[in-house]
Amino acid sequence: MASVAIMGFGTVGSGVAEVLTMNQAEIRRKTGCPVELKYVLDTREFPDSPFRDRVIHDFAILERDPEVTAVAECIGGCGVALEFTRRALAAGKHVVTSNKALVAAHGPELLELARAHNVNYLFEASVGGGIPVLRPLMFCLAGNQVEEIVGILNGTTNYILTKMLREHAAFADVLREAQRLGYAEADPTADVEGLDACRKICILAALAYGKQLPEDKVYTRGITGITDEDAAAAEAAGMQLKLLGRAFRAADGKTALYVSPHCVPGGHPLAGVEDVFNAILVRGNAVGDVMFYGRGAGKLPTASAVVGDLIDCLLHSEKRREIGWTAGSEADMADIAQQPMRWLIRTEAAKGAAEAALGQVQWVMKGALLTPPLPRARLDALQENGFSLLSMLPILD
Amino acid sequence: MASVAIMGFGTVGSGVAEVLTMNQAEIRRKTGCPVELKYVLDTREFPDSPFRDRVIHDFAILERDPEVTAVAECIGGCGVALEFTRRALAAGKHVVTSNKALVAAHGPELLELARAHNVNYLFEASVGGGIPVLRPLMFCLAGNQVEEIVGILNGTTNYILTKMLREHAAFADVLREAQRLGYAEADPTADVEGLDACRKICILAALAYGKQLPEDKVYTRGITGITDEDAAAAEAAGMQLKLLGRAFRAADGKTALYVSPHCVPGGHPLAGVEDVFNAILVRGNAVGDVMFYGRGAGKLPTASAVVGDLIDCLLHSEKRREIGWTAGSEADMADIAQQPMRWLIRTEAAKGAAEAALGQVQWVMKGALLTPPLPRARLDALQENGFSLLSMLPILD
Repeated sequence: MASVAIMGFGTVGSGVAEVLTMNQAEIRRKTGCPVELKYVLDTREFPDSPFRDRVIHDFAILERDPEVTAVAECIGGCGVALEFTRRALAAGKHVVTSNKALVAAHGPELLELARAHNVNYLFEASVGGGIPVLRPLMFCLAGNQVEEIVGILNGTTNYILTKMLREHAAFADVLREAQRLGYAEADPTADVEGLDACRKICILAALAYGKQLPEDKVYTRGITGITDEDAAAAEAAGMQLKLLGRAFRAADGKTALYVSPHCVPGGHPLAGVEDVFNAILVRGNAVGDVMFYGRGAGKLPTASAVVGDLIDCLLHSEKRREIGWTAGSEADMADIAQQPMRWLIRTEAAKGAAEAALGQVQWVMKGALLTPPLPRARLDALQENGFSLLSMLPILD
Repeated sequence: MASVAIMGFGTVGSGVAEVLTMNQAEIRRKTGCPVELKYVLDTREFPDSPFRDRVIHDFAILERDPEVTAVAECIGGCGVALEFTRRALAAGKHVVTSNKALVAAHGPELLELARAHNVNYLFEASVGGGIPVLRPLMFCLAGNQVEEIVGILNGTTNYILTKMLREHAAFADVLREAQRLGYAEADPTADVEGLDACRKICILAALAYGKQLPEDKVYTRGITGITDEDAAAAEAAGMQLKLLGRAFRAADGKTALYVSPHCVPGGHPLAGVEDVFNAILVRGNAVGDVMFYGRGAGKLPTASAVVGDLIDCLLHSEKRREIGWTAGSEADMADIAQQPMRWLIRTEAAKGAAEAALGQVQWVMKGALLTPPLPRARLDALQENGFSLLSMLPILD
């Protein structure tokens, strides 16, 4: 018999309890012993929940219980979640989580604490919901130099952009509908401004390149400025609009990473990823391109990843997984404004002026063109000098 | 310093040597120590290879060398590969392989031997080449009951079918071109008759359901009978033709598995997987659908997976990964002929006769129709009774 606990009984936490219960027999087959959910830690009571008799309010109860081997932290944020994670690891308990904010902000400290106490800190659910991506990246692709990681990391914004292109609808209208359907939160800022995607690309880059870079220094552009004119221009160019998080090794050896809406050419594997689905493409120097696809959020998909991590801890409970990265700084980051990319640009400039400013361009419709590879700094300078730039979107090549 | 050896210096074996060399620094960062390729075991000499000074012909040299921690078996087949794998495991060395024939035929014995000697037998490269799929299935998705696994598991046949549909070309012509380009072997039997895909779906089913089923009892239909009339009918129905390996839990609780060309509806994530690419879709009862995509074969992609397994062994060398399945038998297999599926059928039967025989059908062009869900046994019986069935292809729903 193995005992586990859940901290935080919201959407993900209650999903973890549900998966542990509905797949009890399967989990027992895999771990070789029954897995008991012993405690559910929350400030609230849940009188109608089948798990009401396991609810506790005092973290110290599970902290001091030697029977509890592993804990799923589903509280979220960097407040008590950080304190309880530190204390659980220090008490010799494995901790698994879906909390991307905590991993992105405190990953190195918590991984080091886990190492010091010979336990695991696992967080597969923090990127891509239920899609397996962190473990494959760490272990299956370990023989590669990762040349690039690029992904649709946020389901809410992918739903909005898919609808904008498919139905020629405006951003504000689609956002309202997404909120009505429960695909977007009442306060959608973290999703639509790209902050959620930014945390996820920081975690992916840390695993691929070994350094955790400061998320507040990452160039992050969300989708609130995307207009139906942008969508029409992308469509005319045979491209899809996708909010992408992207990390690659720049020419100077530093890590380039950023979040931005992109134009994705029609034949690209990411172009067909629609609605709330996520996908992450990894380019390794041996394997070439591999892609991971699935539902990047939602109660049971996210719980699936948390329970997978719990099972890994129980199955290998004396056998710590070696995961490590160290804290990096802005000095490890390449200047994104200097990386050459092709762009879809909308402009009021006349043909001659546009070609004089940008070089050999390709017009896709009146007022919209594709540029040759140019750094963003160059476009910014043109705009400062009075060149008409109604909008600019990088192209994923 | 960790020492490894390669057995078999063909395409995959030489690719493993190449990846170990070109990604030396990256691998050292991940394992924490330099990894030395100490021996290359082969019957041949390689006077022009940079690894010529490591070539040995006597297995006993590496078997007796206590410095060798892990061995990559790239010999293939079930002859000496089986003997050397047994002896290497018994000598306390981790063994990793891309040898799907050996894993599909002797998996339970070799996993048990590895367990007895506290070492790993890992085989990520045996399915999907470089695409991470076995480790994600075993660990990331461990919290799920796997409802279905279905995949494009063979790049050669996917290349042929893609070309047949795209260029309206005949099977024999495309096969000849694939051989000229090196995408198909001189003897293409294992690929085009579906045997390669059969071994891979057996390995996937063993990991998902815990039992290794006898590959020679698996219904396996290749693509040699596919005509350009089939391709035209699929196109008229808005579908792609794909050779799929598929395993699912049948209504009687047994495992249904088979290999067959299928019609895949245009919007399905597998429909867009073209040319030599592979993709495996896993449906879990918590996670929903997840898909893994990439190059399923080739020297460096396959070597990428072998080296990933080597690194896992070195990184966790005292910490065996728990992987296990037991030998199953035909009694664990559902009768595929009794599983209801929709079909694309070509027939010379008149409208009235076809509808009387098949129920509510949907005509896609003259002489081609989609059936309601029917077991294959029912279609076979109709054919025996004189009903015209020029061809029948199951539809992936």
